[in-house]
Amino acid sequence: MNEETTAHTLKAFDDDLNRLRALISEMGGMAEHAIREAMRCLVQRDEETAKQIVKDDKKIDALEIETERRAIQLIALRAPMAADLRDVVAALKISGVVERIGDYAKNIAKRVPQMESRNIEPLSLMPEMARIATEMVHDVLNAFVERDAEAAREVFERDKKVDDFYNSIFRTLLTHMIENPQQITEAAHLLFVAKNIERVGDHATNIAEMVYYAATGENMAERLGQ
Amino acid sequence: MNEETTAHTLKAFDDDLNRLRALISEMGGMAEHAIREAMRCLVQRDEETAKQIVKDDKKIDALEIETERRAIQLIALRAPMAADLRDVVAALKISGVVERIGDYAKNIAKRVPQMESRNIEPLSLMPEMARIATEMVHDVLNAFVERDAEAAREVFERDKKVDDFYNSIFRTLLTHMIENPQQITEAAHLLFVAKNIERVGDHATNIAEMVYYAATGENMAERLGQ
Repeated sequence: MNEETTAHTLKAFDDDLNRLRALISEMGGMAEHAIREAMRCLVQRDEETAKQIVKDDKKIDALEIETERRAIQLIALRAPMAADLRDVVAALKISGVVERIGDYAKNIAKRVPQMESRNIEPLSLMPEMARIATEMVHDVLNAFVERDAEAAREVFERDKKVDDFYNSIFRTLLTHMIENPQQITEAAHLLFVAKNIERVGDHATNIAEMVYYAATGENMAERLGQ
Repeated sequence: MNEETTAHTLKAFDDDLNRLRALISEMGGMAEHAIREAMRCLVQRDEETAKQIVKDDKKIDALEIETERRAIQLIALRAPMAADLRDVVAALKISGVVERIGDYAKNIAKRVPQMESRNIEPLSLMPEMARIATEMVHDVLNAFVERDAEAAREVFERDKKVDDFYNSIFRTLLTHMIENPQQITEAAHLLFVAKNIERVGDHATNIAEMVYYAATGENMAERLGQ
């Protein structure tokens, strides 16, 4: 290949990879929205919208299949080497993580019909916890699109807040169960909801580590001495 | 390339892919063992071994990184096309799922110190549930190594048993909580353990779908009319 062809091939690869990143970012937007909406449905006992969230998860699954198809095509057509190949593999993995975040939204939405009473006090803390976790997802996917290692690191450090929320909600729910045994089933469902949101935060930090590694070649956890 | 070179390249690719499959199978063996051991630790309140399981999860994580490294190398060196490339991507994804099964074992092991009493009746059902789920993992990874679509389908259908176990344990734990409020914290931890094992079964069915698709080119869920 002469220089011009090489430049053309590189440009084509970058364009393809950017389109792949944009698709994953779109998927991420759907997953964030689904988490926040599922949480709203839980608080407001909105069973109709909850059903729609469960159905709409198929769209996120379809986007994962689409990103996988495109990533495979990109590898086959452009034969990327070394760092470029690692970038495509990172995109593939991140798309898988976003699909799992969508699954958590579906899981939360499925529990909405189990909520018979609104007066479970720990429930009032959960939308704020979900807001922090979905913001992490949003910001880490921006960092991925922008290849911004610093922004990824910043998301990574925010996870502690979500974990603190989770521990507080866990304890509050157990106390609620002891004091209100007639609401034990609902409180048990809320334990799983809180755990799902805590996992969304974990997944955002996993993505942050992948973005950091792809951008710097260094392992973030080692860098931060964790 | 002449025919001999092509045959040689194909053979080299198959050898590499088989080594990758063997590595994932080894990882799977470690994850199964970790789940069963974590469950034993929970029943016998063996905190020492539980700590070791948490530590050993790093070995499973390291094997995932190793399979990823080898898969990327395989793609870069052998430039597989179409079905072969999909096979490598499937191996990458399956290795990610096995790593998550290892995480569930770690999660279960971390709950061992929370178990203060042995007489929580639903706990007695859980090792059998774990046995069924880990057998599914074992059998589906064999199906992956053997490229056996029929064996993968058979594993897929076994997941119903795990789900039935989960539903039964969930109800039993809630009843136990109502009747023994002083054990509510331990019972809550067991709810999560039961959920983790239910997820191990789900992951085995996910792998089964990937193996079936890779072997037949058909979507198993559609084929079974689900």
